[in-house]
Amino acid sequence: MIRCLSYSQGEIVDIEPNIISEKINNKNLLWVDLENPNDFEIKILSESFRFHPLTIEDCLHRKQRSKIEDYQNYYFIVMNVFKGRKLEKEFINSEIFIFVSKTYVVTVHWSKMELIDVIYKKATVTTNIFERGIDFLLYSIMDGVIDDYFPVVDEIGEKIDEIEEGIFKKDDNVVYNKIFTLKKNMLKLRKIITAQREILNTFLRHDFTLIKEENRLYFMDIYDHIMRLFDLIDTYYDLLTGTLDLYMSSISNRMNEIMKTLTIITTIMMPLTLITGIYGMNFKNMPELNTEYGYFVTLAFMGLIALWEILYFKKKKWL
Amino acid sequence: MIRCLSYSQGEIVDIEPNIISEKINNKNLLWVDLENPNDFEIKILSESFRFHPLTIEDCLHRKQRSKIEDYQNYYFIVMNVFKGRKLEKEFINSEIFIFVSKTYVVTVHWSKMELIDVIYKKATVTTNIFERGIDFLLYSIMDGVIDDYFPVVDEIGEKIDEIEEGIFKKDDNVVYNKIFTLKKNMLKLRKIITAQREILNTFLRHDFTLIKEENRLYFMDIYDHIMRLFDLIDTYYDLLTGTLDLYMSSISNRMNEIMKTLTIITTIMMPLTLITGIYGMNFKNMPELNTEYGYFVTLAFMGLIALWEILYFKKKKWL
Amino acid sequence: MIRCLSYSQGEIVDIEPNIISEKINNKNLLWVDLENPNDFEIKILSESFRFHPLTIEDCLHRKQRSKIEDYQNYYFIVMNVFKGRKLEKEFINSEIFIFVSKTYVVTVHWSKMELIDVIYKKATVTTNIFERGIDFLLYSIMDGVIDDYFPVVDEIGEKIDEIEEGIFKKDDNVVYNKIFTLKKNMLKLRKIITAQREILNTFLRHDFTLIKEENRLYFMDIYDHIMRLFDLIDTYYDLLTGTLDLYMSSISNRMNEIMKTLTIITTIMMPLTLITGIYGMNFKNMPELNTEYGYFVTLAFMGLIALWEILYFKKKKWL
Amino acid sequence: MIRCLSYSQGEIVDIEPNIISEKINNKNLLWVDLENPNDFEIKILSESFRFHPLTIEDCLHRKQRSKIEDYQNYYFIVMNVFKGRKLEKEFINSEIFIFVSKTYVVTVHWSKMELIDVIYKKATVTTNIFERGIDFLLYSIMDGVIDDYFPVVDEIGEKIDEIEEGIFKKDDNVVYNKIFTLKKNMLKLRKIITAQREILNTFLRHDFTLIKEENRLYFMDIYDHIMRLFDLIDTYYDLLTGTLDLYMSSISNRMNEIMKTLTIITTIMMPLTLITGIYGMNFKNMPELNTEYGYFVTLAFMGLIALWEILYFKKKKWL
Amino acid sequence: MIRCLSYSQGEIVDIEPNIISEKINNKNLLWVDLENPNDFEIKILSESFRFHPLTIEDCLHRKQRSKIEDYQNYYFIVMNVFKGRKLEKEFINSEIFIFVSKTYVVTVHWSKMELIDVIYKKATVTTNIFERGIDFLLYSIMDGVIDDYFPVVDEIGEKIDEIEEGIFKKDDNVVYNKIFTLKKNMLKLRKIITAQREILNTFLRHDFTLIKEENRLYFMDIYDHIMRLFDLIDTYYDLLTGTLDLYMSSISNRMNEIMKTLTIITTIMMPLTLITGIYGMNFKNMPELNTEYGYFVTLAFMGLIALWEILYFKKKKWL
Repeated sequence: MIRCLSYSQGEIVDIEPNIISEKINNKNLLWVDLENPNDFEIKILSESFRFHPLTIEDCLHRKQRSKIEDYQNYYFIVMNVFKGRKLEKEFINSEIFIFVSKTYVVTVHWSKMELIDVIYKKATVTTNIFERGIDFLLYSIMDGVIDDYFPVVDEIGEKIDEIEEGIFKKDDNVVYNKIFTLKKNMLKLRKIITAQREILNTFLRHDFTLIKEENRLYFMDIYDHIMRLFDLIDTYYDLLTGTLDLYMSSISNRMNEIMKTLTIITTIMMPLTLITGIYGMNFKNMPELNTEYGYFVTLAFMGLIALWEILYFKKKKWL
Repeated sequence: MIRCLSYSQGEIVDIEPNIISEKINNKNLLWVDLENPNDFEIKILSESFRFHPLTIEDCLHRKQRSKIEDYQNYYFIVMNVFKGRKLEKEFINSEIFIFVSKTYVVTVHWSKMELIDVIYKKATVTTNIFERGIDFLLYSIMDGVIDDYFPVVDEIGEKIDEIEEGIFKKDDNVVYNKIFTLKKNMLKLRKIITAQREILNTFLRHDFTLIKEENRLYFMDIYDHIMRLFDLIDTYYDLLTGTLDLYMSSISNRMNEIMKTLTIITTIMMPLTLITGIYGMNFKNMPELNTEYGYFVTLAFMGLIALWEILYFKKKKWL
Repeated sequence: MIRCLSYSQGEIVDIEPNIISEKINNKNLLWVDLENPNDFEIKILSESFRFHPLTIEDCLHRKQRSKIEDYQNYYFIVMNVFKGRKLEKEFINSEIFIFVSKTYVVTVHWSKMELIDVIYKKATVTTNIFERGIDFLLYSIMDGVIDDYFPVVDEIGEKIDEIEEGIFKKDDNVVYNKIFTLKKNMLKLRKIITAQREILNTFLRHDFTLIKEENRLYFMDIYDHIMRLFDLIDTYYDLLTGTLDLYMSSISNRMNEIMKTLTIITTIMMPLTLITGIYGMNFKNMPELNTEYGYFVTLAFMGLIALWEILYFKKKKWL
Repeated sequence: MIRCLSYSQGEIVDIEPNIISEKINNKNLLWVDLENPNDFEIKILSESFRFHPLTIEDCLHRKQRSKIEDYQNYYFIVMNVFKGRKLEKEFINSEIFIFVSKTYVVTVHWSKMELIDVIYKKATVTTNIFERGIDFLLYSIMDGVIDDYFPVVDEIGEKIDEIEEGIFKKDDNVVYNKIFTLKKNMLKLRKIITAQREILNTFLRHDFTLIKEENRLYFMDIYDHIMRLFDLIDTYYDLLTGTLDLYMSSISNRMNEIMKTLTIITTIMMPLTLITGIYGMNFKNMPELNTEYGYFVTLAFMGLIALWEILYFKKKKWL
Repeated sequence: MIRCLSYSQGEIVDIEPNIISEKINNKNLLWVDLENPNDFEIKILSESFRFHPLTIEDCLHRKQRSKIEDYQNYYFIVMNVFKGRKLEKEFINSEIFIFVSKTYVVTVHWSKMELIDVIYKKATVTTNIFERGIDFLLYSIMDGVIDDYFPVVDEIGEKIDEIEEGIFKKDDNVVYNKIFTLKKNMLKLRKIITAQREILNTFLRHDFTLIKEENRLYFMDIYDHIMRLFDLIDTYYDLLTGTLDLYMSSISNRMNEIMKTLTIITTIMMPLTLITGIYGMNFKNMPELNTEYGYFVTLAFMGLIALWEILYFKKKKWL
């Protein structure tokens, strides 16, 4: 699907793809959005815009990392977009490919993106965005991409709290498994954010002329958001490592508890059993056996031993 | 709540908010403090001072990280302020937002801050602060913010000592739990201090004109304090990791102790029990049973075995 | 084996080694490929091309790390080429040695390389490659080398998934062993990619004149591929460390399970055995023995004890 | 206590504090040493030397980190001095505060320092030090401070060897405890050395005019010593971490040994006990009981079982 | 022992120490080698060459780290030389001290060094070395020093393979001990190589005039060798850490195995023993005891229980 907006002298027009080339030459401001483009629509990239074959190839081959490349008269930007908010499973992300020059923005993506739809609608309705220039349009898109990461990161924070609680409650259902999946997703997320930070770094360099000085502040704002994402992910990652230690130590503690039970029972029962064994022997001459109260004395003696041991364990704080 | 101080030619005046704009134009030195401002007071930021909408938005949305941003004719600074000294629970911090130009300082915060009140009072009473310039006022505020972290960090040190002692005393009440909460707080604290160090780095660059050369030394002093905080937190963090190892090793040691007890008891009791078992068998023809002293000899023999084992364990240092 | 291609004015000729010197002086574009060269063919490097003895020595001694060296009128590049796709065993790589100036590329390798054969064939058939210049030929070779690493890295990803699954299935056949071998290979791979990234860094510096501005983009593309490899390897390495933790925790969990079984059995059986021991003693005067239902009462009592213990363990979630 | 040395035209004079100001103006070389100064002596710093209040405050508040600060006409240096050589307890250090300009050195310290006394004596006796300039005097002091760290670091090395040996000898008295205390001290020491390295870095910058080119080499020598300290501490720290692993693995090994003993005894004794249990049953019809050699055959059989098990364990290398 | 070679106009002469000063002034190329020098020979350094006292002191005090120092008219280089190839014990290294200017090289070492002898012999026999200049002589020495490290590093690789194999073979003789000693040596080696890399970094800076442009390539070659050493040591160090994990996990696995054996035996034997206990009680009224086949039924029942348990453990994969 292809959508084109042209802006010139305060007027926004929804144009047909076939007149794109003409608009480019007229120096109109232009936003072309390609959602899941077919072969014909892809051709517009090479024929109307004359983008470098390498970049078009990049658009076709997905699984790109975020980057920015300078092609003299335009920049080619890839941004990873978070998609689907289920942290239980493996984390999925898609890409948005952005071509941007001083007069146009071309966005290519292979799945419907709500954030693009929202901005597109807004750009159609008011002239607010185009008025401030092509760089402000770019800002709106990038800001949307970055802000979409916050709910994910917040959810990660909640997940960690959940895991931590689970450990204290000794609720054992595959805790480590959860930690591991979360770690996997955070590693992925961290790589994505790192790559996107590099893009912003390029933008904020003072020799980057695409961005007007008055709009620079907006990009600084995105940068600030990315840094906050970074801080959060870093902190959460360290916390996650902490919960793992917590989990391992809780396993060790439980082991200790189990061993203590075993040891206490064994240590109390074994000597008693030995005594019964002794008086169960069949020797002819065992004087104790024939005494009147031997049995009761023995039972009492066994009781004393047990008591003494229990007191000993109490003292050792095993009970 | 809004408070405004105006300084001009050695005189400090408490002014009304509605004449702020006028004072700005007159190049008077000005400190405007907004504590938990209402919508009307917030408007002063945009209308009298004409601050950038992005910065005002930042003031409204809390949970910012410390940063400094250059808006040509003023700087926008966010500083995290430590709040509430309970380390047991999760660590809480609030923000102070500072707008600073060559002639005014505007501080915005959403809760009462003692450190601001102290400086405000001092600035009202003596001309000491304003006399040395707006940058000295800024220094006073920042110094207060940073110095508030020292008691927290000192408390962390004491907590670690406490935990360490608890481990040696084998006092088991949720030690790891404590270590984990402390770690969490230190991670957070570290991020905050790192961000604030960056602000000071910006201040101390020689091309930073807001600060007069004679006041530079004061900011170097803050920097030095931050570095000390850093050193302390780093060291404590490493120590905390050390106590965790200590704790794990103490668990292992206790496990060893428990296992030893179990093994010693089992190893001594089992052979004795076997012997009693043997003489408890009902075979017709068991010559030992009919000897006069068989029972006593057997008891003595069992005693010898036990003794031999005890000596063996002594030698092996298990006892 | 030696192969030489000469290109001049749109024509590609397969030339004899003995006229190489002549072609060099005529400023023809030249590609000389030496596959497993004999002593005579090696001599061409020193005599026709007058390469520095140190570089020729490097070609003869294998096990080089990737590097680029500037010899004023030519560059000497070593690249590690992945060879053989069996990750189970230790990872093997060979080298390709490339001498490149503005007019020639000389490639030396000690084993047949499919990627060279493919490019050679392509260069013979169409003028596409030579037309764009010697630097494009270099790009084609380097791109082939780098792209050969992707299947390996993908395979590593699959291996990790396999190992992870094996841990959850409690399939114990030498899991750690596999993790260890994989780690070994990844360490090696990482070193190789790091060294190759440095080469690309040198290429992309703006003062590197060998590459024409129009072909620079292609080398940026290679750089981008390397960065992707890097990201993947880094992520996989962290994941692998994660699986190791997972494995260790699964061992600990199994240990816990075993200990629980032991403790439950012991704790239930021992008191019962003690009771049977008591009534197995041979005291003359044991009133219970002579009661009519003593035996059955005792059995019932033992049953109750066992039941009580089972309930206790259920409550403690050990069962 | 205050001591002042004045040097001028080859003559060294012990002067009174009250003529310090005069000597400063006369451009005599001057060394003023304040040991545990009283309020009156502190006043000299502010009144005669006119040092900045911030630096004087630093002198009064101890627990400073090593640093160098540039106050236009003099430098303020803080150096941590090692004090007391008992590594068992927590590591103590004090500070020496140095004010240095082209014509004077002022040293302030709160406890008697042998290294200062030594240099003071030397400076009184010969003109060797003052002749080479104020910077050489500074070098002498700093060199003394740094060299004092070597015996500590050497002692750490010996301690580690001691701990390591203790582990192999299975000498258990609080080993981990020792490792932990040592780690604590090394962390502290590392911070100190790092801060001092930064001072030297400042000194060796070529735009640092306080030091004459001919004396620069001496400061390079100090730098070299610091680097050696660094190397040693780093290596020892890594070794210490290694000994911790060694200790943990030795605990695991001992646990294994204990468990083996337990398992062997249990595995041998239990089946034998079962057999005696069987022939201890009171069934009327148990044919074996009435055979002539049943008892002896049973004993022999039990012996065989035990033997077979022992051989089995030998094969499994548990014995 | 002192040896001096003088080179001038294609002629190499073995000269006497007493004419060194003269040769220095004549601008002859000169190599003076001091092996284990006596006091008289040391004096040559200060009197003929007028080297700085600090450097001569460095020569006398051994245990230096590799470094390069610029003394205006000469450079002072310390290089650590590997000595003795026994990795079992602690790693020993000695130093070679090199003074180099544009016209002479002075080497000082305290033990016989084969690599020096080899180069000295070569320099005596052919003019190859001196012809290419003093810097080539320096290269020859440094190259020899670095190349001496390769056999050590290769040996480390073999040791690691050996340790790894030992773990799989469950060959227990002090494995961790070996890992620890190896780690210690690698730490030391790594520090040495790092320091030597820094020297080469200084050499390869373009403003380093001692080295002629045509000989620069040779030093790049040494640098390349050092980088290879680095890569190898890094990889081996990571591998060693891996083997440690492997070892710990093998201990855990063995523990698991032991615990399993214990649990299986206990779990099978205890219930059987309980049954024999029951029928060993002396109650008057136990109907089963008087039945004809009670004994055999009981034995069969016990057999069934044992069988059922074994099947259960098989299912749980404990057997």
